[in-house]
This record gives sequence, C-alpha cells and structure tokens, in this order.
Amino acid sequence: MPQYLPDTICAIATPPGIGAIAVIRLSGKDAILIVNQLFFGVNLTEVDSHTIHFGTIRKEGVIVDEVLVSVFRGKKSFTGEDTVEISTHGSPYIQQQVLQLLLANGAKAASPGEFTMRAFLNGKLDLSQAEAVADVIAANSPSSHELAMSQMRGGFSSEIQKLREKLVHFASLIELELDFGEEDVEFANREDLKSLVTELSNALMQLVNSFDYGNVIKNGVPVAIVGRPNAGKSTLLNALLNEERAIVSDIAGTTRDTIEEALTIKGVQFRFIDTAGLRETDDAIEKIGVEKALEQIQKSSIYIYLFDINELTLEEVEGDLSQFNQDKPRLVVANKVDLADDSKGIPFRDSDIDCHFISAKEKESLAELKEILYQSVMDQLIDKNDVIVTNVRHYDALSNANESLLKVLEGLDNNITGDFLAMDIRQALHQLGLITGDITTDDLLDNIFSKFCIGK
Amino acid sequence: MPQYLPDTICAIATPPGIGAIAVIRLSGKDAILIVNQLFFGVNLTEVDSHTIHFGTIRKEGVIVDEVLVSVFRGKKSFTGEDTVEISTHGSPYIQQQVLQLLLANGAKAASPGEFTMRAFLNGKLDLSQAEAVADVIAANSPSSHELAMSQMRGGFSSEIQKLREKLVHFASLIELELDFGEEDVEFANREDLKSLVTELSNALMQLVNSFDYGNVIKNGVPVAIVGRPNAGKSTLLNALLNEERAIVSDIAGTTRDTIEEALTIKGVQFRFIDTAGLRETDDAIEKIGVEKALEQIQKSSIYIYLFDINELTLEEVEGDLSQFNQDKPRLVVANKVDLADDSKGIPFRDSDIDCHFISAKEKESLAELKEILYQSVMDQLIDKNDVIVTNVRHYDALSNANESLLKVLEGLDNNITGDFLAMDIRQALHQLGLITGDITTDDLLDNIFSKFCIGK
Repeated sequence: MPQYLPDTICAIATPPGIGAIAVIRLSGKDAILIVNQLFFGVNLTEVDSHTIHFGTIRKEGVIVDEVLVSVFRGKKSFTGEDTVEISTHGSPYIQQQVLQLLLANGAKAASPGEFTMRAFLNGKLDLSQAEAVADVIAANSPSSHELAMSQMRGGFSSEIQKLREKLVHFASLIELELDFGEEDVEFANREDLKSLVTELSNALMQLVNSFDYGNVIKNGVPVAIVGRPNAGKSTLLNALLNEERAIVSDIAGTTRDTIEEALTIKGVQFRFIDTAGLRETDDAIEKIGVEKALEQIQKSSIYIYLFDINELTLEEVEGDLSQFNQDKPRLVVANKVDLADDSKGIPFRDSDIDCHFISAKEKESLAELKEILYQSVMDQLIDKNDVIVTNVRHYDALSNANESLLKVLEGLDNNITGDFLAMDIRQALHQLGLITGDITTDDLLDNIFSKFCIGK
Repeated sequence: MPQYLPDTICAIATPPGIGAIAVIRLSGKDAILIVNQLFFGVNLTEVDSHTIHFGTIRKEGVIVDEVLVSVFRGKKSFTGEDTVEISTHGSPYIQQQVLQLLLANGAKAASPGEFTMRAFLNGKLDLSQAEAVADVIAANSPSSHELAMSQMRGGFSSEIQKLREKLVHFASLIELELDFGEEDVEFANREDLKSLVTELSNALMQLVNSFDYGNVIKNGVPVAIVGRPNAGKSTLLNALLNEERAIVSDIAGTTRDTIEEALTIKGVQFRFIDTAGLRETDDAIEKIGVEKALEQIQKSSIYIYLFDINELTLEEVEGDLSQFNQDKPRLVVANKVDLADDSKGIPFRDSDIDCHFISAKEKESLAELKEILYQSVMDQLIDKNDVIVTNVRHYDALSNANESLLKVLEGLDNNITGDFLAMDIRQALHQLGLITGDITTDDLLDNIFSKFCIGK
C-alpha cells in the first residue's frame, strides 16, 4: 500500500485532556525536517537516533512551548519510518497549537491506527500483531492484557504461519501436478496429504474453539443475578463489587467508570448485566420479576439465582428455576444463612440442586462463591490453549480455512482430481494469509485500522 | 527543603484515560536504578543522558508492556535530578500495573506538583517560574498562554529580582548604620534612598495595577448579556459562539466542554455568565427579568444590554438602563435591525446612549460588535505592561511590598531613625522574596504546589 507512505503523518498520541505532559507524534520521511523548521535548540537533522533534545517550538518567532523532542530514525522506530515525538506541556491549547503548526508545515493529520498500519506496511509487525496493538490498549484485566500482549508479540501469528507453511509445500506439489496437465502424475502423496490436512484441520478446530474462551477473556463474562424481591441481590452485588473497589481505588483517576459493574476474579473479568436496575431498591410490588430475569439471563453467559433461605421452600425454588432457560449455566445461591438455623439448609442439601450457602450482608462465603463462579465459567469453556483466538475476524478466517480443509479431506476420500483439491487448498491458504496480512486488501486494512484510536 | 529529596517519586504524567501512549515519570536519585530492575533491554545504568531505549517492563518475568524508556541524568533534567520517563501503551490497565511495580520497587507516589517543586528546590526554576508551569498547562487562549509562557521563562521574576537588588543595596547600608548604634552615622544617603524608594514604589504600583488586566487575560472577561424577553439574547450568544466553534472544532477531542460558553476575541477570552439560563427559551412571562439581569451584571466585568429596536422606544431603553449598576462598563446593542426601517435608529443615534446596531439572526455587524467589546475591555484596563501580574499571591506580595515602601517614604519625610526604616525595608524585601522563592516556608510551597496536577 505504498500510497500512504509519501506523507508524513502527525497526531496527538496521549489521551485527550489536561495533564502534566502531552506527546505529539510524527512519522514519515519528512518527520525530522518538519519539526526542525519549528524547533529551536539543536539541528535535529544531525542528531542520532533515539536521542532527546530540549528546546522551544516557535510560531513566527514566538515561543509556543518549551519541549523535549525525541528523534527515531528509519528502521529502528515503531513505524519503520523516521519518527519524532514532541513532548509538550499537557495543555490542550498547546497541543492544538503545535499540531496546527505541524499541519501548516507539511504534515498530514493521521487517520485512526495509521501509525500502526505503517508499522505493518513497513514490515515491522504482521497484521495480527498490528491488530493486537489496539487490544493491548483496550485490555483492562490481567487475562485480557496477557492475551493481547502475547498476540502483539507474535504468539498467535507464528502458530498460523507454521500451519500455513506446512500446507504451502503440498499446495506447490499439487500445482505442479496441474502443470503436467493430462499426464496423470501424482507428486503429492495422497496419504501424506490426507494426514497433514487432518492434522491441520484439528489444529484449526482447536483455535476456532478457543474463540469462546478468548472472547470471554477479552470482553468479560456477562453474569446476571436474578431472584425474588428481597432475596438480597443488591446486597450481594455491592458486597462483591465493594471488595473489588477497595483494591482498584488505590490508583486514582483511572478506569472507575468502566469497571463500575465489573468484577475481576483470578484475572478474568465478570460483567454484571443491567446492574443499575438490580441496584434499585428491591420493590415488594415488583410484578415483572420473571420477565426481567429471563431477559437478563438471555444476555448472560451464566446466571446466579439468589433466594432467601428463610423465605422459600425447596419447592418454590424449584418452581422459580423451572421458569428459566435450562441450557444456561447457573449457580443457585441461598442467601441470609446468618438469619437461619442449621435445619433450613437440609432440604436443599438433600435435593438435586447444587446449592451454595452465603450471607451477602455478613460477607459470609463470598470468597467461595467467587471461586465457584470462576470455576463454573472455566468448566464451560474448552481447555486452555497456549494460543487463543480473540478476534472475530481471525475466527471467521480460521473457520473458513477449516471448511476448505474439510472439503479437501472429502475430496481425497472421493478421489477427486488435483485441480479441485488445489482450489480448496488455495482457499485455505488465502484465509490463513488474511490473518497474518500476507494477503490484504485496502478495504480489509481500512476496516481493521479505522477502529484504532488516532495517534496509534 | 531537603526532606523531599531522598525519595524517588513517580506518577503518570499524561492525561488520564485511554490513548495511543502514556508516559510515567520518575525523578530522584534512584530513578534509573528502580526502572532498571524492571526493564529488560539494555542496562539503563550505563546509558547516556537524553537517550531512549526500547525494551519490556516485566513483573515476575511476565511482560507487562513493551516500552520506550527515556533517561535524563542529574542537572540536565527538568527537576535537576535523575529522571526516567517510561512511554507505555496508553491503556489504563498498563499504566496502573507499571505504576504499582514502580511503587513496589522503591518509588514513592508523587504529590501534586512535586516534580515542579523539585525543579524549584534544585534551583532549576525560581518560585514564580515554577508557579507559571501550572498556568502554562491551564492556559486556553493565546493571551493567557503568552503571559504564562513569559512568566515561566522568567520575565516576571527577573523584573522583581531587579527591583529587589536595588533595594538590597540600601538595606545593607542602613543595617550598617544600625551596627554603629548610637554613633549617628548615615551611610545611606536619605535623598538617594527616597528617590530609589519612590522609583520602586511606582514600579510596584504599575505591577499591582497590571493585575486587573492580567486577571482578565488569565481567567477571561466575564460578560453578561441582559435584556427583555425576545430581545434575541440567545440568538446573539449562539451567533457569537457558533462562529468561534467552527474554528475550534477543527481539532477534535480537546477543550470543547470548557470553552462552551467562551469566546476568544483577538486572543482575549470572554466568558458569558450563566449562559445556560440565557439560552433557555425566552419566556414572555419571565417576571424575574430585572433581578436576574442585576445578578448577572454584578458578576460581570462588562455587560451587553440587548433590545429589539422594533419593540422598544428610547425612553423604555433608558428606563431599563437606569435600573442597572451605573458604574459597570456596558454596551447598548439594538437588535433586529434587519426587520426595521432606517427611521427606527434615529432616536437612538441622536441620544446620549452610545448604541450599536446589529442583527443577531442575520449575523449583521457581529464582527464590529466583537471589536467594540474587545476595545471596551481594553480601554477599562491600564496600559499594557511588558510584565503583567496574573497570580493573586504575587499581587498580595507586591501590594504588601509597596505598602512597606510607602511607610519608608513617610518615615523619610518624618526623619525617623534608621531602625524603623530598616524594618520597613526588610519587610518589603521579604515580600518580594516570597515571589521569587528567595524566601519560602513549607506552608507556602505546599499551598502553591498542591494546586498542580499530579505528574507535573
């Protein structure tokens, strides 16, 4: 995509707003020249790569700011192009002024993700690594962070690359057969091909299946807490969240808003559905209880059915549960055991229902509940792989590649001719190439990078 | 204040939230050592100052992020101490993780303004320069930015320093007289002293008077738009603001919220008071019109009285105006001239009222109105100085210093003894020293720097 490369792009790379400092980034062949026109301190065209220089940015002689300028030359930068980072005072006014000066002096405003796209186009990252940059920035739990980091560092794409290379060898043999046309030669041993394709298909299936787990890790597990009024749903949620909050609030000013309804257990994020509604005062005349619960269960991966052990009989609990989606994983939780005598639990312990006993108010057995919630989710998901698919685009490509491989296997069983086999193998290779970026289109790139933030 | 210096401090220096990158900054004697424990790439203890290094930050061997680390050694850094800046991916999660690692490895969380305070304590900036750092970050109009930048670069404090040095000479002569006790010698020529103190007092007065202007530049000019219902107040405000917005919105994601009600004319910011109220539908049954107007005028530096030239007679306009604060500068503006015939303006043109004719709806004569608004404010303010006081703390110190100087002059006229003169001179020197930081107290520093953002 060399059409992007003649320009020098610039953007504010730090979050918007006021801070101590802000960083404005340029990348492209004129990055150093453009900044050098505005910068007074040293001659930036003569400095070494990876050095920092103090000076002023001036507009028509007037100082806009005192800045630090970092210079990165050519291949050694993130984008693989000459790159300059201007560290200004963190005033939106100054950021604007400097950006406008850069634009006036020949830089172009960067599109979302354009720095990362350039890193890809210049061969610094493959496509799945480039995509993972956005995931690294968005990750907000240890597990999702670890996954994104591993993908950015090439864990996933090296796996795909290995699978693809194995197939390429056979593909070239089959293509060779086709060159010989009518002569009915077989360079590619059909048995070997079958065993390889079976092996690949299994590997792809495992990756495809890892998507459910990857998605949970990346986006969090949606959980609903349902139950009759006064079961203690709000109390439970607050008890679960408050503990978590005490940890999170150590660091001020970060992601409070976005984690409000989320709880991280052993690095996996659980998101509580419509907790705003759940936190409203439990209203005794709430009539829409069941519909609301069904709706929330529908949106969840797992739900907690909470009841007051002092109010409900086993039959009533069974009655409630029978109204819910029977396929959805659930935890049945008896609340308010602090107010109950020991005999209350007996019918539940003796029943088929796997019931957990807590007191949300007294924070009794909450740690166990978290552990059970975590285990229940992990049990639903496939065994953890080293390599996990988190990206829906990769999931599609892997599914499509596997479908083509299954056609190859079917073809081999039916002794179809090499040209049909070649077609399906080519299709599988194409799909795998889409993941790593060995095969790209402008649309694909636009689609991927337009979801990035500007400045990345 | 050496008690601060044994620690190595750290903080996130970029604005909170998600961006392409974030910068975490450390300053102190162990800054390089602390980061070096966590950083894998090169040995940071061996690198040159002002160089940048790519590598990974790891927690118990696991990669937290790929980062760029900038190293600044000793005197050449902003704080005058060893400083390290870690440029991470702009994810709040990563920022937290890295910050926690630094804290766990011996760094201390920086207080607001602590980096800048260290720059002051280490002699890199004087106090008024250090204070201006916060103003530079907060400045949001060309004029306020220019003022803050000039102050940060020492324009203001060098002026104070000059005045102070002149006085110090005489002070030492007077103190010498005191040493000679009863001997009635006069080392300090009283005529020279009087002429110097008069000169200084005039210079201080000019600085003190510049505060009104400085304050307007720094904080914007509060303007009220008042008038009867349907005079077109909302239309006028929107017409004024919308033009401005078209310019500002070129740069996305910056200060939209804070400039909502502000208008910058020739680099000076005008802030419209309670415009939320003004933008409500003008209600014909609005009875509290006058009280509301008076309240708004009270809070403004200048007000615009707007009326519909097709509805009001000269007498009615005069009646309205007579109810307002007569000391407050004002603009009388006749609106809706697009709907009026030429004769309508005659009574107003012939009256003593200096009336401006516009059509807010048709955006007629709005540029002229802005120019008049700007000029009216400039006329109210003193002649511009090169050096302008914007800081209320400086204003207080200058006023106090000047008061002491006036006492010196009074004393000289009354031939009081050297010890009384010395006391007042010392007091003036003390006050001037408070500005530059030649004289400080812990309370003063805490008070100043606690208003900074963390990371600066």
